[in-house]
Amino acid sequence: MWDRFLRACRCEPVDATPVWFMRQAGRYMAEYRKLREKHTLLDICRAPELALEVTLQPLRAFEVDAAILFADILLPLEPMGAPFEFAAGEGPVIHAPVRDRAAVERLRLFEPEEGLPHVLQAIRLLRRELEGKTPLIGFAGAPFTLASYLVEGGKSSHFMRVKRFMYDEPEAFGELMHKLAEVVRRYLHAQIAAGAQAVQLFDSWVGCLSPRDYTEHVLPHVRHVLASVAEAGVPIIHFGTDTGALLELQREAGGSVIGVDWRTPLDAARRRLGDGVALQGNLDPILLFAPRPLLERRVDEVLAAAPRTGHVFNLGHGILPETNPDAVRFVAERVHRVTSR
Amino acid sequence: MWDRFLRACRCEPVDATPVWFMRQAGRYMAEYRKLREKHTLLDICRAPELALEVTLQPLRAFEVDAAILFADILLPLEPMGAPFEFAAGEGPVIHAPVRDRAAVERLRLFEPEEGLPHVLQAIRLLRRELEGKTPLIGFAGAPFTLASYLVEGGKSSHFMRVKRFMYDEPEAFGELMHKLAEVVRRYLHAQIAAGAQAVQLFDSWVGCLSPRDYTEHVLPHVRHVLASVAEAGVPIIHFGTDTGALLELQREAGGSVIGVDWRTPLDAARRRLGDGVALQGNLDPILLFAPRPLLERRVDEVLAAAPRTGHVFNLGHGILPETNPDAVRFVAERVHRVTSR
Repeated sequence: MWDRFLRACRCEPVDATPVWFMRQAGRYMAEYRKLREKHTLLDICRAPELALEVTLQPLRAFEVDAAILFADILLPLEPMGAPFEFAAGEGPVIHAPVRDRAAVERLRLFEPEEGLPHVLQAIRLLRRELEGKTPLIGFAGAPFTLASYLVEGGKSSHFMRVKRFMYDEPEAFGELMHKLAEVVRRYLHAQIAAGAQAVQLFDSWVGCLSPRDYTEHVLPHVRHVLASVAEAGVPIIHFGTDTGALLELQREAGGSVIGVDWRTPLDAARRRLGDGVALQGNLDPILLFAPRPLLERRVDEVLAAAPRTGHVFNLGHGILPETNPDAVRFVAERVHRVTSR
Repeated sequence: MWDRFLRACRCEPVDATPVWFMRQAGRYMAEYRKLREKHTLLDICRAPELALEVTLQPLRAFEVDAAILFADILLPLEPMGAPFEFAAGEGPVIHAPVRDRAAVERLRLFEPEEGLPHVLQAIRLLRRELEGKTPLIGFAGAPFTLASYLVEGGKSSHFMRVKRFMYDEPEAFGELMHKLAEVVRRYLHAQIAAGAQAVQLFDSWVGCLSPRDYTEHVLPHVRHVLASVAEAGVPIIHFGTDTGALLELQREAGGSVIGVDWRTPLDAARRRLGDGVALQGNLDPILLFAPRPLLERRVDEVLAAAPRTGHVFNLGHGILPETNPDAVRFVAERVHRVTSR
């Protein structure tokens, strides 16, 4: 069943639980590392043929039920006027972090077909390639997660700068979130128009916030994005980590699938969220390093805790670069074998 | 009421909600920074008179209802045979990380009066100084949090090495946890014997684990420690961060007070844990940087969500070095003013 991923997102019956992996294309695969010898990560994102090739690599290697466009959540920052680079071993570095109202005002909205044409072109190429075989997921970073990079200037452990900006200048921060939300909204619509059959919103770092702050400073913006994108009629996966206290609020903000990390068992998530929404998750990515019998047991436990309909198997966060591809292959096969009806 | 902290820990009525701050002695205070010009952090920990002085600094400056011994959770590692240092700007570095069974077997149990006499001497000095004025809290890192430093070799973002050790060699990891639990058990008993009137177990990083892993690899060891320490009859605060999915299991593991970070509202924690246990928390430490009216509002909201008896006001994690002491003073006074009966 080629569309079991899309069906599970809509809580429809499936022949087997669909599985894909966040960062399923990437450094853990020898094929990808080979390409990276000649091209940087951003080169690949900017060359549709290379992005196509990298996106397809895990589909050739594993029984995954969805393709996810190879790209980076930070790509929209450059056309907004906030260029960045990936410093070796340090993750992203924003050249001029956004830390006051003037910097927020300088950020530009842009039309995705003008600002990120290569991403949309990659989606069009991929759809042609995958038609009727594997559904294609588009994605974007969520406003808060993008704001955290913009304000912090890169990764952060305490999220001190972004929270301080939020507390000190709530209006300017609101304007930042408003701009990011509009960029993300247009970007997701453009990806869907180009052929993405589902989209995932990555609010990877939103779990650093209290429910109080989330409700006041984040939820309205995410709701605005997701209500608009929902009109396009494709499944929306709303993902975060450390979101044990935010799940109900995330559901309120929108999405047909809620992504859950390994900290929250899927049966508990289901009890809290009800059965009108699908769940995605939630194996700890570090379990991919575990001995096979333990990995098998834990995959089976995730499946046992998951709802029978409306479950998309995934990790609770992305595959780490040191992961052995054999473990990824094993998990995909195991999920299918155990859940085949 | 000099003992309102101890009374709140026991869920007894108090004249006002007690307040103290994790890392209330430290780099954000000019008095402390002055001392650090001449002494390293470890020097201070090893000199009872200096530890005494630093412990008292916040008591002179703020209306805090408890003193917490100035020390570091890693101190027991050196007498176990795993020396470390604090590298400038990088946090702790364990000289020889523990990554196999042989390394676990080399770790030594020790008698606190022999291995950490200066800590116990500092407690005795402090008790003399504080008698009848302010209760003194002792503390230790919890076995998993200590294991994470030992195995990772320092701080970690993914906790990959410690989880891999746990998955790959569950018996050796269990032996490591067993040894750490025994060290922590003896250390807390020794602190109480020296005069600590309450103790806090810092399982700061345990929130990286799924409930499944916590139950199997951590809970039995924490329960062993806390059941033994409970016999000494002083309140035990059981603290962690990112523990939204672990609270019930932490309560099961023990403690008369459960420490909660800002991600879990105290009313939700109370509903889940019932009223037989006190709660500590849970202001986001970054709120200490917020404009005064917002800080005031959020302190009041924490108090409004807290149980009327059995609440110890604190942050959800330690005070950050960049914090303005005026904000700390303001919060302590505000908690007392709002809750005075």
